Amino acid sequence: MNKQIILTDLKQIHLKEGDVLHCLKKGDYGYVDFGELYFSKVNFNKIKGWKRHRKMTLNLVVPYGEVEFIFANEDNTYTKHIIGINNYKRLTIPPGIWFCFIGKYNPFSLIASVIDNKHDPTEVDHKELNYFKFE
Amino acid sequence: MNKQIILTDLKQIHLKEGDVLHCLKKGDYGYVDFGELYFSKVNFNKIKGWKRHRKMTLNLVVPYGEVEFIFANEDNTYTKHIIGINNYKRLTIPPGIWFCFIGKYNPFSLIASVIDNKHDPTEVDHKELNYFKFE
Repeated sequence: MNKQIILTDLKQIHLKEGDVLHCLKKGDYGYVDFGELYFSKVNFNKIKGWKRHRKMTLNLVVPYGEVEFIFANEDNTYTKHIIGINNYKRLTIPPGIWFCFIGKYNPFSLIASVIDNKHDPTEVDHKELNYFKFE
Repeated sequence: MNKQIILTDLKQIHLKEGDVLHCLKKGDYGYVDFGELYFSKVNFNKIKGWKRHRKMTLNLVVPYGEVEFIFANEDNTYTKHIIGINNYKRLTIPPGIWFCFIGKYNPFSLIASVIDNKHDPTEVDHKELNYFKFE
C-alpha cells in the first residue's frame, strides 16, 4: 500500500465575476474512486482529530480559509501542511495515517473532502487530542 | 432523457468545532457519475451565464454564501431557485437546460460543482446575458 501523503498544486482561474478553482478530476494522481463529497467547517483556532481512516483515501481541498493539517509519523515525528486559498493545493491522505487539523482563518475555514467510498463510521479510529504530543 | 431539475434537502451536522455539511454520495438521486469536482466563486451581485451543457449533468451545492439560479424553460417562462447555507440543498441540472446564476452574498459565494465527466468546453453553449429576457 502506498502510504505517501500527496500534495498537488491546483489551478485558480481568475475571472471578474468570480474565480474558478480546480479541485479533483477522475484519473488525477491520488484519485481512487468517488464514494462521497462532504464539507467540514473548522472554526478559528479549533482542532478536529485525531483520526485515522483504516480503508478510505481522502482528497482534501480548502476552497475558503486556511487549515493546518498535522500528521503523526510512525517514528514519533510530525509532518505539517497548511493549505487554503493562499496556498491552493490538494492533499491526498492514504489510509492508515493519524492526523488532526486546526482552523487558521476567522471565523471558519471550509474543507471539501472526497472519499473513495460512502462514509462508514466503523473504518475511522479516534484518539483524544492529547494522545499524540506535538509542540 | 429526464429533463427535470432536482432539488434535494441536505443535512448539516452541528458540531462545536465546526459543522459537517453533506453534499453528494454515489447512488444518490440525481448522481450519474464522477468526472470532476470544481468550485466557482460568484462575486456579490455578479451574474454568470447564460450557459447550457449539452452532455453533462451538474450537481451543485453552495457551502458558502447564497446563489440565485435562473432556468429558462422551453415555454419562455423562468424558474428560480435560491440555494445556500440558509437553504441548504443540492441542485441537479440535467443536460439541455439554459441557466444563469447571481451571487447574493457579500463579498462572494462558493458553488461546488460535481460533473459526470471531465470538463469539456465543446459541450457547453454560451449566450450573452440579454439573450433571454427575464424581469
